[in-house]
Amino acid sequence: MKALVYKGPRDVQIMTVPDAKIERPTDVLVKITTTNICGSDLHMYEGRTSVEKGKILGHENLGEVIEIGKAVDRVKVGDRVCLPFNIGCGFCKNCERGLTGYCLTVNPGSAGGAYGFAEMGPYEGGQAEYLRVPYGDFNCLLLPPDSVEKERDYVMLSDIFPTGYHATELAGVQPGETVVVFGAGPVGLMAAYSSIIKGASKVMIVDTHPDRLRLAEKIGAIALNDKDGSAVARVLELTDGEGADRGCECVGYQCHDSKGDEVPNLTMNNLVKSVRATGGIGVVGVFLPLDPGAQDKLAKKGQIAFDFGQFWFKGQRMATGQANVKAYNRKLRDLIAAGRAQPSFIISHELPLGEAPEAYKNFDERANGWTKVILKPAA
Amino acid sequence: MKALVYKGPRDVQIMTVPDAKIERPTDVLVKITTTNICGSDLHMYEGRTSVEKGKILGHENLGEVIEIGKAVDRVKVGDRVCLPFNIGCGFCKNCERGLTGYCLTVNPGSAGGAYGFAEMGPYEGGQAEYLRVPYGDFNCLLLPPDSVEKERDYVMLSDIFPTGYHATELAGVQPGETVVVFGAGPVGLMAAYSSIIKGASKVMIVDTHPDRLRLAEKIGAIALNDKDGSAVARVLELTDGEGADRGCECVGYQCHDSKGDEVPNLTMNNLVKSVRATGGIGVVGVFLPLDPGAQDKLAKKGQIAFDFGQFWFKGQRMATGQANVKAYNRKLRDLIAAGRAQPSFIISHELPLGEAPEAYKNFDERANGWTKVILKPAA
Amino acid sequence: MKALVYKGPRDVQIMTVPDAKIERPTDVLVKITTTNICGSDLHMYEGRTSVEKGKILGHENLGEVIEIGKAVDRVKVGDRVCLPFNIGCGFCKNCERGLTGYCLTVNPGSAGGAYGFAEMGPYEGGQAEYLRVPYGDFNCLLLPPDSVEKERDYVMLSDIFPTGYHATELAGVQPGETVVVFGAGPVGLMAAYSSIIKGASKVMIVDTHPDRLRLAEKIGAIALNDKDGSAVARVLELTDGEGADRGCECVGYQCHDSKGDEVPNLTMNNLVKSVRATGGIGVVGVFLPLDPGAQDKLAKKGQIAFDFGQFWFKGQRMATGQANVKAYNRKLRDLIAAGRAQPSFIISHELPLGEAPEAYKNFDERANGWTKVILKPAA
Amino acid sequence: MKALVYKGPRDVQIMTVPDAKIERPTDVLVKITTTNICGSDLHMYEGRTSVEKGKILGHENLGEVIEIGKAVDRVKVGDRVCLPFNIGCGFCKNCERGLTGYCLTVNPGSAGGAYGFAEMGPYEGGQAEYLRVPYGDFNCLLLPPDSVEKERDYVMLSDIFPTGYHATELAGVQPGETVVVFGAGPVGLMAAYSSIIKGASKVMIVDTHPDRLRLAEKIGAIALNDKDGSAVARVLELTDGEGADRGCECVGYQCHDSKGDEVPNLTMNNLVKSVRATGGIGVVGVFLPLDPGAQDKLAKKGQIAFDFGQFWFKGQRMATGQANVKAYNRKLRDLIAAGRAQPSFIISHELPLGEAPEAYKNFDERANGWTKVILKPAA
Repeated sequence: MKALVYKGPRDVQIMTVPDAKIERPTDVLVKITTTNICGSDLHMYEGRTSVEKGKILGHENLGEVIEIGKAVDRVKVGDRVCLPFNIGCGFCKNCERGLTGYCLTVNPGSAGGAYGFAEMGPYEGGQAEYLRVPYGDFNCLLLPPDSVEKERDYVMLSDIFPTGYHATELAGVQPGETVVVFGAGPVGLMAAYSSIIKGASKVMIVDTHPDRLRLAEKIGAIALNDKDGSAVARVLELTDGEGADRGCECVGYQCHDSKGDEVPNLTMNNLVKSVRATGGIGVVGVFLPLDPGAQDKLAKKGQIAFDFGQFWFKGQRMATGQANVKAYNRKLRDLIAAGRAQPSFIISHELPLGEAPEAYKNFDERANGWTKVILKPAA
Repeated sequence: MKALVYKGPRDVQIMTVPDAKIERPTDVLVKITTTNICGSDLHMYEGRTSVEKGKILGHENLGEVIEIGKAVDRVKVGDRVCLPFNIGCGFCKNCERGLTGYCLTVNPGSAGGAYGFAEMGPYEGGQAEYLRVPYGDFNCLLLPPDSVEKERDYVMLSDIFPTGYHATELAGVQPGETVVVFGAGPVGLMAAYSSIIKGASKVMIVDTHPDRLRLAEKIGAIALNDKDGSAVARVLELTDGEGADRGCECVGYQCHDSKGDEVPNLTMNNLVKSVRATGGIGVVGVFLPLDPGAQDKLAKKGQIAFDFGQFWFKGQRMATGQANVKAYNRKLRDLIAAGRAQPSFIISHELPLGEAPEAYKNFDERANGWTKVILKPAA
Repeated sequence: MKALVYKGPRDVQIMTVPDAKIERPTDVLVKITTTNICGSDLHMYEGRTSVEKGKILGHENLGEVIEIGKAVDRVKVGDRVCLPFNIGCGFCKNCERGLTGYCLTVNPGSAGGAYGFAEMGPYEGGQAEYLRVPYGDFNCLLLPPDSVEKERDYVMLSDIFPTGYHATELAGVQPGETVVVFGAGPVGLMAAYSSIIKGASKVMIVDTHPDRLRLAEKIGAIALNDKDGSAVARVLELTDGEGADRGCECVGYQCHDSKGDEVPNLTMNNLVKSVRATGGIGVVGVFLPLDPGAQDKLAKKGQIAFDFGQFWFKGQRMATGQANVKAYNRKLRDLIAAGRAQPSFIISHELPLGEAPEAYKNFDERANGWTKVILKPAA
Repeated sequence: MKALVYKGPRDVQIMTVPDAKIERPTDVLVKITTTNICGSDLHMYEGRTSVEKGKILGHENLGEVIEIGKAVDRVKVGDRVCLPFNIGCGFCKNCERGLTGYCLTVNPGSAGGAYGFAEMGPYEGGQAEYLRVPYGDFNCLLLPPDSVEKERDYVMLSDIFPTGYHATELAGVQPGETVVVFGAGPVGLMAAYSSIIKGASKVMIVDTHPDRLRLAEKIGAIALNDKDGSAVARVLELTDGEGADRGCECVGYQCHDSKGDEVPNLTMNNLVKSVRATGGIGVVGVFLPLDPGAQDKLAKKGQIAFDFGQFWFKGQRMATGQANVKAYNRKLRDLIAAGRAQPSFIISHELPLGEAPEAYKNFDERANGWTKVILKPAA
């Protein structure tokens, strides 16, 4: 089958590789019809992870079931399914509590597995024609009859829509509250969108890219361009000096200041400043336990110089980590089916799989207008 | 009246000052029968805060109501009451949600007020014969008929028992879970005690003072002496390598390593290491937004070098801040009344108010056996 | 001053009565600018309560502060305020936990007080020129600068908007869920509206009045006319046979079947049938502990023949009771201020206070199109 | 193998039946070492259910894994395991949220399956030498090394300990609260025990059997003998007239009044009376959707005459249903392992499987001292 393979830093290629296949009786085999490029794929693309050469990338996958293992009871051949980026077993201490992002089974020695990702277990990605899905009964989200027509929406259930939603859950967003989201990339936009769906009274979003901020305004958020470093002050002004009730971190360790320098603690400290006393912060942007390639001395050790004193004095709380996709994907699917959510507004490019290498390049360069790329292996 | 007055760094004196009195129709006047020295009083004693000279200290107070303002409806003269260290109005946005530690009324321009404390409003403390209690109907906790007999227990409701309990709430301790508490001072011991009351399966507590650890063992906790820096490894060992479900920070910015040096990020980073992926951390130890007197460069700015990468990768959450005493003091009172809690086990010294200056000195030096001092103004 | 006074069953009159005035230092005096007739006023109007003759009715009130007591600190003369229908003290065991509908202070011997209501304490209502507000600092919700322009929206914060919202909280409505609301009167419409604001995927509402159902459709709900008793079957059909995730009871003890007979257990048993196993039910419709005037033998004793076996077998849960308005009114106010909620869509009639008696008559007869009446004392 | 088989009303016999065996690749085969008789077995024994003749009874099972299916990854031959009475698939809409008592897979057309139980699917029970466990990776709770020594404690994790605990979760018991439990049978005693573990300040338990009440007193509960119908008054007296914060229903539809008559609504209405306004009620006693064999006219239809008016007026809430055992069994296991819980105090008889028929007879007659029977198939 054809697949997008990581060959080394900034080098991904479409290659012919052995077909994905059923390996365990609990597996399901899916023919991929849509697979996205994720911002976190770029961490690997840029060579800033330990991902092995030869890995097929791609963890935002949707397709049709074409074969099932002997122990699969729920999923049927012909089902159209969306796959959570994180792979769970369904029976470990974490999965049984819904913490499927921290499965203790699928990636022994760690907590959490994923398709086509560094340090996330031996699973190939879905930027390919076929994908092996472990524990298929547990991991496949069945799609309703309108799944072809709304495929561009449903594919967002694999990662960024639940991840943005997770940010709002971690922050504790409640109806009527004010929310500030740092980062207007795909995940940040989904966090803003989720806040609006949940009934937030005012959603502010901070970024420096005008194209992203324009998308944010389209969905009803207040766009704050931080080019001049004024965002924190603007948030305070918009909240009568109190700060927002909730804040979402959707940038991660590679955050840049207005001059373009990487300043790893910038977003977190801005959140502490712009969220109210007793408020909550949700962090879904990726931070690394170790980052030897970083320039910053603390960052190499996985540390940031954090405004902990102010954080404590304000009695704030924060929750972090990758989304447990299965905790949200059913209900978000139902919102799409009911016509109450259309996360596809984020898509800027729909391309054949063959054009993936070029798409990685453009997306990595944050080329103007490249907000979200979806790939069609069958095109 | 006689009162303990702050005169300057490491200088507190018993002086005669004007009697406390009713100033507003919502005030209540209390004759203090027991008042404690708190570990946080030492921050002021050591001159490491902005507290003004002449301030009466003391925020852990219990006594009898001897006069009420014209607008007081619930509290009666003769009632025996325990006063939360934080003063709330009862009607602001925070108080009405139970966040009485962050009252927006009593200390304008900030969030939260307290008796006899730096930066916490113009309120005198209770290490004195009498105390003015603002918004008396809201702030007085009425005590049951056994209040004289159990006064040593009930006085702990003013601060350390609810504060220790708050740590376990912030951490999210549930029955059957494992808990690690850093710091076996009065608050840490109360956090361990609260965890046991809540049905934790295993409570580990870390400190370097043998006298404190002995108290911890008395209440059923597993004492870990970190003199050799082995505590994190021991916690992992005791939890099958997973880490504790929950962790409590009860030390604060003045934490010291095993050599006796102040290392402000030590406890927090040890917590990240010793708490399991997806676990929760509650922080009640005090951290300062600015600490010009600190030696550490980051600490001066109120920052710590925090293992944020590992914290995020493990998907941990943390909540912080001073206890909202009123959120817990009724139920903890009922546990004392029912004979199911005896927080007085913490007390090492019961002294007349006149001996307070000497007690401050000993407590500040962590003199062996000085775990908790209670003062009797009438003695 | 002029006020609407209860004189006996189906007899309310505009009379001149002594002016409302400050009686306690914690009181606030409000000049009423808008006051609504509530469905629950009709229970008194119909003579089915113990309300005393001479009582001024009206518990949905908004106006301007014209005088404050000596102990009032937050509210100022000139403030425009909306008053929760339930009166709380702010300091009792229930108020301090946000259960202001069950205040233990304001109506001794019971739990909960209200303006102008049977069994709810000695408080006059606001269908009058002036209203005395006890514990003014606690009970007044301050309105923003656009309060005149949006007065028709803000006045709904006194009762029906929070009450409808409360139904969804009691039921546990979460984003993406399906909800069925029984009753499309003002409260039921507000429950449906609140569900939509919260991000429900599908909101179904059951009634037999076409005018009410039309309003429901306007806000995006699925209207089910139960004239033929088909509503439960329709809900099951719309939820793939599973039943709705959540159900709201917004009818109360005077529910009628499709033939027009009062059948007190009808709505509750229909909810049990139409809500899914493990689902939640919120009950804000009023049920009486004793109803001597009822025809049904069980109803006289305050009982209903409840499908408890099915309720248990399905593992459902339910929560009940009047709304704790203060738990929601700040955030709902902020939604109105931000332009994200316009509850005034419910209003059918805006009349001078003088026309109140006629309005009661029409509203009581459920005259076509009389969904919600607001009164203007100054008109 | 030998097994206890239901032959008809009040007729159970030990018979030789075909060995249980692996049927699906996800199955696990367990050699039973302890299996209990449950109070709910008596519903079948008495012929009051639709259970088919020939069914092996027994849903409280513990034993050793002797064979695993090809798709089993976690459980190993030789593991000692305790089995939740309810069987879950692990991947349906309910199981993935932890609602394993309402699995939508294992008993098609209903919600929830169990071993050896009427209407709970085609699964044989464990009062036998061997048991087939479907979805073994999901359903087996692994036991620690002390599992032989504490087998009498661990076997309670199959049902009554989690079920009693579930009652306290449904009721919402928090540390410091007062709790009233109706019913001092095994489940009621476990509800009281769970309340104490959770830190309740006062636990009252109501029954008419002195032997059961004596056990309750042993664990620190306040025993209230309702022989004279005084229990509600006593609860009010012990809670200063307010009522208990929380109430647990552990009796079910076959509750009897002090004269010995079956009065199906007795316990529920007593709970409404004895729980405080705004309090919570958890119902784990079994109620039937239809009970054709009942004498009471409402009961035949699965209804009770419920004090709904008072329930609503007090703003109470209740939650119901069978326990989702997997939601609690890990943490309760850890409490046993840590020596903080010993639920075996409930056991009155430990017998060979061969004596099961006699044990059913005695247990059904509530013979004095027969509180809980455990059976040893290998004895």
